[in-house]
Amino acid sequence: MSDRKQFRDLASPEEAREVIDGLDLSPGVERVDLDDADGRVLADRVDARLDVPGFDRAKVDGYALRAADTFGASETDPVEVECVGDIHAGSEPDVSVDEGTCAEISTGAPVPPGADAVVMVERTARDEDTVTVRTSLAPGDGVMVAGADVAAGDRVLGPGTLLTSREIGLLAALGMETVPVRAKPRVGIVSTGDELVRPGGEVSHRAGQIYDVNSYSIAAAVRDAGGEPVLYPHAGDDYEELERVLRDAADDCDLVLSSGSTSASAVDVVYQVVEERGDLLLHGVSVKPGKPMLLGEMGGSAYVGLPGYPVSALTIFRTFVAPKIRDAAGLPEPRSATVEGTMAVRERYGEGRTRLMPAALVESGDGETLVYPVDKGSGATTSLVEADGTVTVDADTEYLDEGETVEVELFSPDVRPPSVFAVGERDPGFDRVLDRLSNPRFLGLGSREGARRLRNGVPDVAVTTDNRGEGEELASWTREWGLVVPAGNPLAVSGIADLVDADVTLSNRTGASGLRDAFDDALAELADERDSNRRTLAEDIDGYERETKGTESPARAVLEGNADAGLALRATADRLGLEFVPLGEQTVRALANPERVEKRGVKELADVLADVEDVLADLAGYEA
Amino acid sequence: MSDRKQFRDLASPEEAREVIDGLDLSPGVERVDLDDADGRVLADRVDARLDVPGFDRAKVDGYALRAADTFGASETDPVEVECVGDIHAGSEPDVSVDEGTCAEISTGAPVPPGADAVVMVERTARDEDTVTVRTSLAPGDGVMVAGADVAAGDRVLGPGTLLTSREIGLLAALGMETVPVRAKPRVGIVSTGDELVRPGGEVSHRAGQIYDVNSYSIAAAVRDAGGEPVLYPHAGDDYEELERVLRDAADDCDLVLSSGSTSASAVDVVYQVVEERGDLLLHGVSVKPGKPMLLGEMGGSAYVGLPGYPVSALTIFRTFVAPKIRDAAGLPEPRSATVEGTMAVRERYGEGRTRLMPAALVESGDGETLVYPVDKGSGATTSLVEADGTVTVDADTEYLDEGETVEVELFSPDVRPPSVFAVGERDPGFDRVLDRLSNPRFLGLGSREGARRLRNGVPDVAVTTDNRGEGEELASWTREWGLVVPAGNPLAVSGIADLVDADVTLSNRTGASGLRDAFDDALAELADERDSNRRTLAEDIDGYERETKGTESPARAVLEGNADAGLALRATADRLGLEFVPLGEQTVRALANPERVEKRGVKELADVLADVEDVLADLAGYEA
Repeated sequence: MSDRKQFRDLASPEEAREVIDGLDLSPGVERVDLDDADGRVLADRVDARLDVPGFDRAKVDGYALRAADTFGASETDPVEVECVGDIHAGSEPDVSVDEGTCAEISTGAPVPPGADAVVMVERTARDEDTVTVRTSLAPGDGVMVAGADVAAGDRVLGPGTLLTSREIGLLAALGMETVPVRAKPRVGIVSTGDELVRPGGEVSHRAGQIYDVNSYSIAAAVRDAGGEPVLYPHAGDDYEELERVLRDAADDCDLVLSSGSTSASAVDVVYQVVEERGDLLLHGVSVKPGKPMLLGEMGGSAYVGLPGYPVSALTIFRTFVAPKIRDAAGLPEPRSATVEGTMAVRERYGEGRTRLMPAALVESGDGETLVYPVDKGSGATTSLVEADGTVTVDADTEYLDEGETVEVELFSPDVRPPSVFAVGERDPGFDRVLDRLSNPRFLGLGSREGARRLRNGVPDVAVTTDNRGEGEELASWTREWGLVVPAGNPLAVSGIADLVDADVTLSNRTGASGLRDAFDDALAELADERDSNRRTLAEDIDGYERETKGTESPARAVLEGNADAGLALRATADRLGLEFVPLGEQTVRALANPERVEKRGVKELADVLADVEDVLADLAGYEA
Repeated sequence: MSDRKQFRDLASPEEAREVIDGLDLSPGVERVDLDDADGRVLADRVDARLDVPGFDRAKVDGYALRAADTFGASETDPVEVECVGDIHAGSEPDVSVDEGTCAEISTGAPVPPGADAVVMVERTARDEDTVTVRTSLAPGDGVMVAGADVAAGDRVLGPGTLLTSREIGLLAALGMETVPVRAKPRVGIVSTGDELVRPGGEVSHRAGQIYDVNSYSIAAAVRDAGGEPVLYPHAGDDYEELERVLRDAADDCDLVLSSGSTSASAVDVVYQVVEERGDLLLHGVSVKPGKPMLLGEMGGSAYVGLPGYPVSALTIFRTFVAPKIRDAAGLPEPRSATVEGTMAVRERYGEGRTRLMPAALVESGDGETLVYPVDKGSGATTSLVEADGTVTVDADTEYLDEGETVEVELFSPDVRPPSVFAVGERDPGFDRVLDRLSNPRFLGLGSREGARRLRNGVPDVAVTTDNRGEGEELASWTREWGLVVPAGNPLAVSGIADLVDADVTLSNRTGASGLRDAFDDALAELADERDSNRRTLAEDIDGYERETKGTESPARAVLEGNADAGLALRATADRLGLEFVPLGEQTVRALANPERVEKRGVKELADVLADVEDVLADLAGYEA
């Protein structure tokens, strides 16, 4: 353990940015088909090699003629000309126009020799070959002259132009089949760490395996920044394997990112490889999350080592690496999307590092934007989607006070605060309600925490069990709870007494859950009957302390043979096809923050809840 | 011509929107690999089928132990425990921890049986197998418990969620290899009109051919709106061919767009096909540009007929069709990007149709945003890139006054006003200057118009020839002008006199050009010498009135054998490899609006112009 890098000399965020600015990522130029050029950046200037249109062109349907022939003509005093032919778009005129004659012409058709104007059909009348013109024209009227749109030799688009539908149209008008664009920087992503398994594979929880998150989230973020991600085969913590993968990536890419393992030993191996095969320019940045960042060069490619935790990796990528990739791709920095808001809670800092705090937004009833930190630790992937952006807190800021104004840099300009923000008990019934809303946010922190937070005024709505919490009740329903047991109920579990008295292993829920409350209440009742107390009975239940986080976790423990019985809802037993021993019913309520009942998203929720009977119709054990 | 549809009963924009809302575009669901899910929209709800993490996990590098063993420990009063093994991330613990013992553990590794906390290595010291712990821990410290991030049964993401790097990370954490997403609406694009040629092909100007613009610009816009464009083979105006292509497209796509021809006859054919094979729901909308829009259904597919002119087609697509595609794709409406500005000029309307006016922005010196209309007619593709957005003008608004406040809906939230806005003489030397600026805008309206607009205060800079215009001179340079002639100068043209006296056909430049001014001045000089006047001499020049729009157009006329001599710069002759007869030198000046010299983009321009000698170094006939 003695050779572990402790990153004691941390660089400042500014120093890190400077080192990154100095990395060379230039990806060169490639030609792409016009169909594929959308969103790319023009590498060279485009000059027109031809006139657009290439000929004098009728702007309207009507008659091509000599303007001089219509001199003085009007509605009341029209002139007559003789029609000597007609000209269609896309065909060479086979007539020419002389004094006193005209040719029928379609929009876009070439103006015939002799004509210098086109009168629109609406200002004419026709009788056989005689055309009556009821307006006077000047030369050029109704005609788009050759080169009027783009003229040969014009500088049409400059290098660095981002190609959108509008520029694509212009390039099409010039007849360009292919376009020189900046190549997308190739960004190799090397994931390390023995514990990682690619999605789709099987993880062994016993062996401490988890799915590889960073390779996928970073690949998406690379694409978003205008780079082309290249995923390399997963490398473990083995020096030689990792060296080979890193070398391959450096040979093939403009930038190599390593990411994945959270363990210092894997970081050590990467560190060694980069130091031996390239140049390590910086290790460690004084920023949280993200301290263990590496910057370097390796075999002609730039190198950035991202921290292992998903939140840290993505935050560091967004803050330091994405701007560099955008720049190399020639893309403009996205219009910065920041929102000002008021801290909903007090939050302590003062760790001497710049803090990039994931933060979420909620709109209060009066249109104010409240900001609350989403800090589930950087090991949690959910904090990525439970946040809307980042608040940068200076290294020397000790705390942000409740009510203080802060600026939130949104993850993208398209991020919107959730339509409605609910906190509380996870409930399969309420999940169905959420499915009918667009852009809701729900944090399943349990019944008690939901009630507490509603009291503190942050969320719009709390979902609580039994009579917990105060607020405007939007709806209530009941759910049946009990124990799940294996098919056939081999231990013949018929109630809580069996858990206490017989040799039955329980998988329990966390104390934060309202379902657990119901179980504990029932246990207390049994204790009353027996003149005992709840704690004593609980001690007799094998596995009472085996608390799990998820609604389904106890049922899954039973499914996997790790428990004989699990605390669960009938709906869960039904969904997983397990046998169910009913123990009781529990009321679930959706309570609104009284100051937010007029908020649009709360009203939308109330609308859905007005039909809650429908929503819950076929959900086992539910009644509205 | 009698059967041409005149679209006399125009629908209101609101009616058109209602009809479009009623079209069915639902594209169904598809499963994509997680790598390809970025930017897609989740079709179904995703519930967790496992806990994340799946086991109790060390949050730090350190030692796993029983919290009770550290009770009361501190820096000054540490406790000692015995290390009985070590546990790496990604491997099954082969030790368990009892009272008084611990196991070395890496971040991310499973906490071994018996341990309930992990002390970080920084708060310990080690001597052989003895570990000194200098802090006291509570159960759970340093441990992320199973399901703490995501618990089995949790509703993780709702249907309709837009997948970004953050959601992708979460789905990876759940081990999902593929994701159910909304299919992209397939949008068939059928281009019509005999005059259209696909980019890459050869256009015959004589036959009135032009390149197909709409297929490409609309395809890019479809992609941008979340649809999948499908380009169908170009169909002419022939009924049967068009019918076959439209039927194929309707069979294969959720929406068919026809677009291309500007001629009423092609529109008629489309109209007939849709009426016969489907249902025509609406024809003609009271909006400019865009009147001739068709809406209908055809063989189970929705159908929209876009107007033929590129600006009209793209405007109608953006206004009416893109929102429908986004909606079908499940994408949120993009955050509306609007900018308030002041009309820089007075603009008349009052045609009884809603006007979607392409408008451009320029920032004045004091930070005000000026708005000016870009109205080159809807036949011009350049007006697409010379504008920044659209101002919607009500049907009954007669004019927008100079100084009036208007709202510009930007083409996208990423559109920024140009860094510097210059108007005036097209000049190959100044083109090079523009290449060194990021996001400049230049309108090549000629020397005179540049001077006029600078006087009116709209642009930042004017580029003028000779002594035209007033403003702060940023730089000046000279360019050599004269006549281009075919290789070997077969007619031995040596000056203007030969044009007047000999049988030499000239290709001239437009009167707006400063180059033409130089030619006319030289002609006036010759007239003086001959005691004649300029006009008389001009009448003797064959082709004097053959004015062309582009700097290179006369040279190209010579190249193509359509003229014996062309008015041009030496730089142009040099670039096209033509012989050059020098006639004089002309000064070009870049003049800044005196109120804008401090504007950032003007300063950047001034910086480049400070090195104008360098910029023009190897440009034939130029001197700075």
